[in-house]
Amino acid sequence: MSGRAAARRDALRATAAERGLDAVLVTNLLNVRYLTGFTGSNGALLVRTDGSSSGGGDLFGTDGRYTTQAAAQVPDVEVLVDRGTVPALARAAVRSGTGRLGFESHDLTVDGLEQLRSVLADAVAGGTVPELESVRRAVEAQRAIKDDGEIDALRRACAVADQALAELAAEGALRPGRTELEVGRELDARMLALGAEAPSFETIVAAGANSAIPHHRPDATVLRDGDFLKLDFGATVDGYHSDMTRTVVLTHAADWQREIYALVAESQAAGRAALAVGADVVAVDAASRDVIAQAGHGGHFTHGLGHGVGLEIHEAPGIGPLGAGTLAAGMAVTVEPGVYLPGHGGVRIEDTLVVTDDAPELLTLTSKELLVL
Amino acid sequence: MSGRAAARRDALRATAAERGLDAVLVTNLLNVRYLTGFTGSNGALLVRTDGSSSGGGDLFGTDGRYTTQAAAQVPDVEVLVDRGTVPALARAAVRSGTGRLGFESHDLTVDGLEQLRSVLADAVAGGTVPELESVRRAVEAQRAIKDDGEIDALRRACAVADQALAELAAEGALRPGRTELEVGRELDARMLALGAEAPSFETIVAAGANSAIPHHRPDATVLRDGDFLKLDFGATVDGYHSDMTRTVVLTHAADWQREIYALVAESQAAGRAALAVGADVVAVDAASRDVIAQAGHGGHFTHGLGHGVGLEIHEAPGIGPLGAGTLAAGMAVTVEPGVYLPGHGGVRIEDTLVVTDDAPELLTLTSKELLVL
Repeated sequence: MSGRAAARRDALRATAAERGLDAVLVTNLLNVRYLTGFTGSNGALLVRTDGSSSGGGDLFGTDGRYTTQAAAQVPDVEVLVDRGTVPALARAAVRSGTGRLGFESHDLTVDGLEQLRSVLADAVAGGTVPELESVRRAVEAQRAIKDDGEIDALRRACAVADQALAELAAEGALRPGRTELEVGRELDARMLALGAEAPSFETIVAAGANSAIPHHRPDATVLRDGDFLKLDFGATVDGYHSDMTRTVVLTHAADWQREIYALVAESQAAGRAALAVGADVVAVDAASRDVIAQAGHGGHFTHGLGHGVGLEIHEAPGIGPLGAGTLAAGMAVTVEPGVYLPGHGGVRIEDTLVVTDDAPELLTLTSKELLVL
Repeated sequence: MSGRAAARRDALRATAAERGLDAVLVTNLLNVRYLTGFTGSNGALLVRTDGSSSGGGDLFGTDGRYTTQAAAQVPDVEVLVDRGTVPALARAAVRSGTGRLGFESHDLTVDGLEQLRSVLADAVAGGTVPELESVRRAVEAQRAIKDDGEIDALRRACAVADQALAELAAEGALRPGRTELEVGRELDARMLALGAEAPSFETIVAAGANSAIPHHRPDATVLRDGDFLKLDFGATVDGYHSDMTRTVVLTHAADWQREIYALVAESQAAGRAALAVGADVVAVDAASRDVIAQAGHGGHFTHGLGHGVGLEIHEAPGIGPLGAGTLAAGMAVTVEPGVYLPGHGGVRIEDTLVVTDDAPELLTLTSKELLVL
C-alpha cells in the first residue's frame, strides 16, 4: 500500500505545484485514506509541494487513539498526534513557511474554515497569514482512475457479492413466502461471512409491485409466485465498494415480464458495449437509453445509467444525460438501466466494470439470463 | 414517529424565534432524520418560525429517488422533489419572505455556503438578500435529550448486542485457536441476524497484548490460553446505536488480570453511580478516574470516561476531563473506563445508560463479573 500511496501523494504534489501552492491540507477522510492507507476515523494530511515521494516534508495528523495504527498503516509519512488534527497541521504548515495553502472547500465546513483561519493567524503571530485556496476535487479526480491494487479490491468485493447471491439462490432462500427484510438480512450476513467488511449500502430487496420503486427499502412484504424480485446490493472489501443489481422472477414468468426483462438486458448490453476510452459519458448513457426509448419506455427509465465506484459507492464519473466528461482507462463504473412500471413491477440489471483500452472488464460475474426461481 | 418529529420541529421553531430568525435550513442529514423521520441519503428541511406543528409552512426537500419514501416517512410536511435540494429550499425561503435565515455552519461546507449565497442572490432578483446566521448545534443540543421513542430504540439496540454476545459465548465461539477477525465477523453477523441494521461501528476484538491498545482493529491474531479478550461493539436499530465493551479471560485468569479487572469494575461502578441529573460531566469523569488514579494506574487510563449515544455513536454530551456542562434526564451515555498496560494487556468495561431523575437506567445488561471462558 505505501508505495501506491506515495505515488498518489506525488500526483497531488504535482497538481499543487502547477497551481502555485506550497502545500495542500487534505481533510476529506476518504481522500486521506487514499493518499496514506490510513483507515481510522480521524486523520488529515499535509502534502508539501517541496516534499519527496518517500514522505519527507509531508505530515499525517491523527489523535492518540490511532498512534499504533498510524505507525503501522502510514509508515512512510511523519505522524503528528494531536487532539486537534487540522489546527496542528495548520501550525506545522506555518512553521515550514507555507505562503499559499490549498484546502478542500467541498469538504471543510464553514466552521472548519473559520477555525483554520484563526489558527493560521495565531500561528504567524503578526506575520503574513498564508493565503488559502481551494483545490476543489483534485484528489477525487485522481481517485476516478483506479490503479491495480484498487481494481483488485473491487474484483474481490464483486466476487463476494456474486458468491453471496449464488449461495442464497442455491439454498432456496429466494422463494415465495419469505419477506424482503429476511432476504436482505441474509444477503448482508452472507456477504460478511464471505469476508466483506460491510454491505456497500442499504441492500435493496423489492418484490412484486415494489420492484417498480427504484430505491425501495426492504420491508415485511411477502414474496409471492410470479413476482419480480429485484436485488441491488454490494460488498465492501478493503474499503472498495461493489455494486450489482439482478432481477429474477419467482416460480414462473409472464410474457410482459419476459418482454421488459429482455428490453432492459438489451439496453444494458448496449451500455456496456459503449464503455470505451474517450467515450463521452452522455453518449454512453444514450447508447443504453435509446434502446429503451425506442421501445416506448423512455419515460419508465427515470435515472442516470451509472456512476463511478471505489472508496465511495457513488463517485466520479457520473454517467447520465446531465454528466460531463469522457471515460479513461482504469475508471470503474456501473451500468444499470431500468424500466419501472408503477404499481406493476420493474427490472434493473447492473454490473460493475472497469474501462480498459480493450473491452471493459466485467467484475460482477453473476448471469444476466432471466432466472426463474 | 410523525408526532414526535413534529414536537421536535416545534422545539427548533422556538429556538429560531428566540434568535430572531424567520426560518432555519437544516442540512445535516441526521438532524433532518431526527426532525422528520426520513431515513434516505439525501434530504434537507426548512423550518419556518411562523410554521405550525402540523407541518404548515415547513418544507422537506429530497430528490426523485425518494418520492415514495418521503411520502410515507414524512406525511406531515410538504415535500419538494428537486435534484438540487438545498437550492430549491433556499428559493422557497425567499418566496416566503425570509429576511433572516439560520443555517448549520458545522455541517454546510465552504462550497455549500457559496452556492447557497449565490442561489439566494439570484432568487431575490435585485431585492434584499436574506441574512444568513449560523444556528450552531441547536438540533444536536435537542438530540442530547432522548424522548421515549429514542430510548426504546436504544434499549432494543442494546438488547441485540447483549443477545449476540451471549449466543457466541454459549456456542464456544470465544475460544483459544480462533482469530480476532473470525470472532469480530461472527459478532457482526449475529447482530444482523438478530435484527440490527448494521454494527454501530467497526467492532473491536483485541486479544492478549492487543487488549492494551484502546482501539485495536481485529486482525489475524490467534486467541490463546490466558489472554484477555476485549470486545467493544454495538448494534444499530432504527438508526440508534448501542455501545458496550466487555473484557473476558480465556481458560484461566492470572492474579494481575483479576486485579486490574476488579479495579476497572470498581471504577466503572463509581462512574455509573455518579450519573445524576445536574452532575457536572467533569465530576462524573473524576468519580470514575479517581478510583484508577488512587491505585496508581492514572497514566494507564488514556481517554475520556464516556459520551452520548443516539443517531450517532459519539454525540453530546462528552464525559471527560475536558468536557463541559451537566447531565439532564433523558441523556443516553456510555461509561467506559479502562486500564491499559502496554505490551501486556488491558481491560475496558463499558455500558450504555440513560440518565433519569432516579438511578440511571442500564441498557446493556450483560454481566460485568469477570468471565473466564
